[in-house]
Amino acid sequence: MRRIAIDMDEVIADILPKYLGLYHQQYGILLEKEDYWGKKIYQVPGAHDLRSHLHTMGFFADLPVMEGSQEVIRELMENFDIFIVTAAQEFRNSLPDKHDWLHHHFPFIPWQNFVFCGDKSIILADYMIDDHAFNLETFQGKGLLYTASHNIDETRYTRVNNWEEIRGFFRGELGKSA
Amino acid sequence: MRRIAIDMDEVIADILPKYLGLYHQQYGILLEKEDYWGKKIYQVPGAHDLRSHLHTMGFFADLPVMEGSQEVIRELMENFDIFIVTAAQEFRNSLPDKHDWLHHHFPFIPWQNFVFCGDKSIILADYMIDDHAFNLETFQGKGLLYTASHNIDETRYTRVNNWEEIRGFFRGELGKSA
Repeated sequence: MRRIAIDMDEVIADILPKYLGLYHQQYGILLEKEDYWGKKIYQVPGAHDLRSHLHTMGFFADLPVMEGSQEVIRELMENFDIFIVTAAQEFRNSLPDKHDWLHHHFPFIPWQNFVFCGDKSIILADYMIDDHAFNLETFQGKGLLYTASHNIDETRYTRVNNWEEIRGFFRGELGKSA
Repeated sequence: MRRIAIDMDEVIADILPKYLGLYHQQYGILLEKEDYWGKKIYQVPGAHDLRSHLHTMGFFADLPVMEGSQEVIRELMENFDIFIVTAAQEFRNSLPDKHDWLHHHFPFIPWQNFVFCGDKSIILADYMIDDHAFNLETFQGKGLLYTASHNIDETRYTRVNNWEEIRGFFRGELGKSA
């Protein structure tokens, strides 16, 4: 069975609302899409220290699930091996949070298929879905770039804007091999 | 640079003394090598529940470092990319313990090269050092079996009994490619 490696943050876990909430808490300003679209959220004036919150225990515990990801992954599991691959090692406290989050929201994926790593060039799979082009650069399979604010100018990879498009892409792949 | 994936438990972290201590605590008996050699420690009469301790926070925090592993890995890093690859996902509380242990005992390996996974068939590397034959079975590179009590009858892989032998093996590999 072909294998798909799926990133967590900004692919199945929506990290943006948390950042917006923290920014609002700090400055009383609710950022709008035009304020941050096209850059990393840390590049918004005054937001450079938002990234330090990633070290806080609990930060990753209550992130919303990306719309459609549960349903589509469940469907993909009929025809593909699904691995969740996240660069969690930078943030010590994210490790139990991410473990709990996955068991809670994706209990139908076996724990054997969770990977908490750093450099994703260690990953052997047929497809990788990620919002960071640098992870796709070192990947030997087919890379799909999940649209996020910071990657909108990237043109080297097949772009997917949401989980419905991912469903469509893999239906196409199944059609090819049928 | 060629890449070596190195397991943690029973390869760089010595888990046996902890088991022997727990058994002694429970039964007042200090097991000797002939009591457990050739099997899994859980197969020793009365020891079947030792494995439940793996879920305890702190269990993996203070394991002794396998003799010679620090020195040899530091030497290997001159010629190979080193990744530490451990099937930690089964034990939620092992995640921060293992993270801390690696940063404490192997601070010279970048966090980008730590992988906490389950099914190691996801790993892309040239060599894998592991005490479990089932991890080497699905590995596409060259597997080295690190001798542990439970694997002494396994004959399919190049066996290494200690870190001095690992040093010797890789000096041989460098000689081949020179």
